[in-house]
Amino acid sequence: MEITVEDAKFWKNCIDAVVNLIDEGILEVKADGVSLKAMDPSQIAMVAFSVPKKAFVEYKVEESEKLGLNFENLAKFLSRAREKEKLKMESADNRLGLDFIGTSNRSFTIPLLDLSAGPQKEPKIDFDVTVKVNGGAFKEILRDATLVSSHLVLEAGSKGFFVEAKGDAADMREAVEAEVDAKKDARATFPLQFLDDIARACPSDANITLYLKTNAPIKMEYAIGDASLVYYLAPRIEPA
Amino acid sequence: MEITVEDAKFWKNCIDAVVNLIDEGILEVKADGVSLKAMDPSQIAMVAFSVPKKAFVEYKVEESEKLGLNFENLAKFLSRAREKEKLKMESADNRLGLDFIGTSNRSFTIPLLDLSAGPQKEPKIDFDVTVKVNGGAFKEILRDATLVSSHLVLEAGSKGFFVEAKGDAADMREAVEAEVDAKKDARATFPLQFLDDIARACPSDANITLYLKTNAPIKMEYAIGDASLVYYLAPRIEPA
Amino acid sequence: MEITVEDAKFWKNCIDAVVNLIDEGILEVKADGVSLKAMDPSQIAMVAFSVPKKAFVEYKVEESEKLGLNFENLAKFLSRAREKEKLKMESADNRLGLDFIGTSNRSFTIPLLDLSAGPQKEPKIDFDVTVKVNGGAFKEILRDATLVSSHLVLEAGSKGFFVEAKGDAADMREAVEAEVDAKKDARATFPLQFLDDIARACPSDANITLYLKTNAPIKMEYAIGDASLVYYLAPRIEPA
Repeated sequence: MEITVEDAKFWKNCIDAVVNLIDEGILEVKADGVSLKAMDPSQIAMVAFSVPKKAFVEYKVEESEKLGLNFENLAKFLSRAREKEKLKMESADNRLGLDFIGTSNRSFTIPLLDLSAGPQKEPKIDFDVTVKVNGGAFKEILRDATLVSSHLVLEAGSKGFFVEAKGDAADMREAVEAEVDAKKDARATFPLQFLDDIARACPSDANITLYLKTNAPIKMEYAIGDASLVYYLAPRIEPA
Repeated sequence: MEITVEDAKFWKNCIDAVVNLIDEGILEVKADGVSLKAMDPSQIAMVAFSVPKKAFVEYKVEESEKLGLNFENLAKFLSRAREKEKLKMESADNRLGLDFIGTSNRSFTIPLLDLSAGPQKEPKIDFDVTVKVNGGAFKEILRDATLVSSHLVLEAGSKGFFVEAKGDAADMREAVEAEVDAKKDARATFPLQFLDDIARACPSDANITLYLKTNAPIKMEYAIGDASLVYYLAPRIEPA
Repeated sequence: MEITVEDAKFWKNCIDAVVNLIDEGILEVKADGVSLKAMDPSQIAMVAFSVPKKAFVEYKVEESEKLGLNFENLAKFLSRAREKEKLKMESADNRLGLDFIGTSNRSFTIPLLDLSAGPQKEPKIDFDVTVKVNGGAFKEILRDATLVSSHLVLEAGSKGFFVEAKGDAADMREAVEAEVDAKKDARATFPLQFLDDIARACPSDANITLYLKTNAPIKMEYAIGDASLVYYLAPRIEPA
């Protein structure tokens, strides 16, 4: 395979959205695009990442390939992307080549890993509420909440979208500006660190869509350019 | 009580000027304004903070209240103030509510503390020299001096305003641009860390007024908008 | 002696270029200018620094002086230089006075050291290749390489200028835009930390000139205004 993105920083942002949650995983390169499904090491969260072929300026994929990658290592090199550099990726001899093409030509090659994990299935949940909220605003809420607790209650329904946190030093409640579409009210509690890991790579001017059901996992979805990021996160079931 | 400031960041700046020196204290809310007097834990410095009623856009105070506050905790939540947010504060059920009112409505409530310390009296000292100096310039001097020593000599009188520090790695002397009004020359030495804690919240374009008398405590005074900050700091008496 | 530079920050930048490599040394002040030659403590690298008399707006030097200096201490005070300040330096009573002359007058005096090391001779090497490269671009390369290894291979000759690094997490190779003048190809390996210490003070818009010979020390040269910085660094001889 040999695939090229016009803007190396776009690819950096995509991989950041993955590495915030998982350390290693299998990137599948197929005829129609690139994708990844992986659980975080604690099995509390899942990411499904996909980029269609059209997001690449060059896309030579003769047969499907599974690239076992240490995403932390990959992200480290992608962080060296400069403005207006293209990025060509090619696999050969059990290594992935990263060619940054700009005023100077820079090549890194990193080892591919032999990872056994098969493809993960996305959970099927019949959600009750859909909340569309600005990514930047949602990240600010998470920052507010970290001052209060390690967990955040998300509540959405006919009255709007609310977040709540309770702690020793303070309690917090926010009414958040959002587009809410509800069959039924929903309320669930999630670990703040995971919400933060998931939302961190969302562009501040993009929307995040949240799918909620009482005491069920949350589905969170956003786009980075042509790339789609979908996450699932298990709730904390509060003692009755 | 229920009082509101037009600009939440103004209140943040006021509380920062207090928390740099003291951890907890009693904020008195009276008919004519809000005030606080407190000693730092080591009893070397004192702060007297007051804001008149007119600094608030809403001021409902039926009877005087004494709010025992952990200022560190309060400052943490005030640091989340965003541009163009109002801040409403109200006490109820032994808690203080902080409502940030802007594009989204955010509420924090923090516990009030049962603090016993009665009101402190400000020391009465017949100062010999008044020095008016730019806040930003004074803070730069303190940064210069930290490279040299943990103490700073302030000297003012007919010849102007001078600062001095002596240390192993260097000696320093600066002639500082200032407006000096002197009955008699004065010279005293102060712990740099406290001078820094006191001056830190002074807006860089505001003036600090210093009141000096040889080997006596210094009084330092500045304003943040309508709020008045007055500090006293004990000198280090140098061996004769 | 009493010498003055128009821009205190210029002198700060010069001393930073020295202190990145060496802790202390002897600054020689002669009729025609100021200079220093010193080895780094591990004896792997050498710096030769010189500034002609014309770089100073005032230059009163009646007889040559050798100033033993702790450059770390000196750099600390120079870092307090503000915009548009002159810097006057004068020696007296075994101390060096630093007078920053601007809106306020600030004086630091630091002790001179009694250092015995005599003047170092610069190595004479018949280099095969001269490479002129932009300072900013070269510093970016060093940052790329630190992700890969603690050593960097520099290779220059008829095909251009290349850098290479090999490590566990990745391999790297860059073709660097540069002006190359070669009698013969050259290739040698250098410790990255030292290359970084040497290049760090080079203005990003200035050029660095590299003089190379296979498995020989590298000579690196750049200017900060009127000041000249020349460095020598020993190669790592790779096992055959």
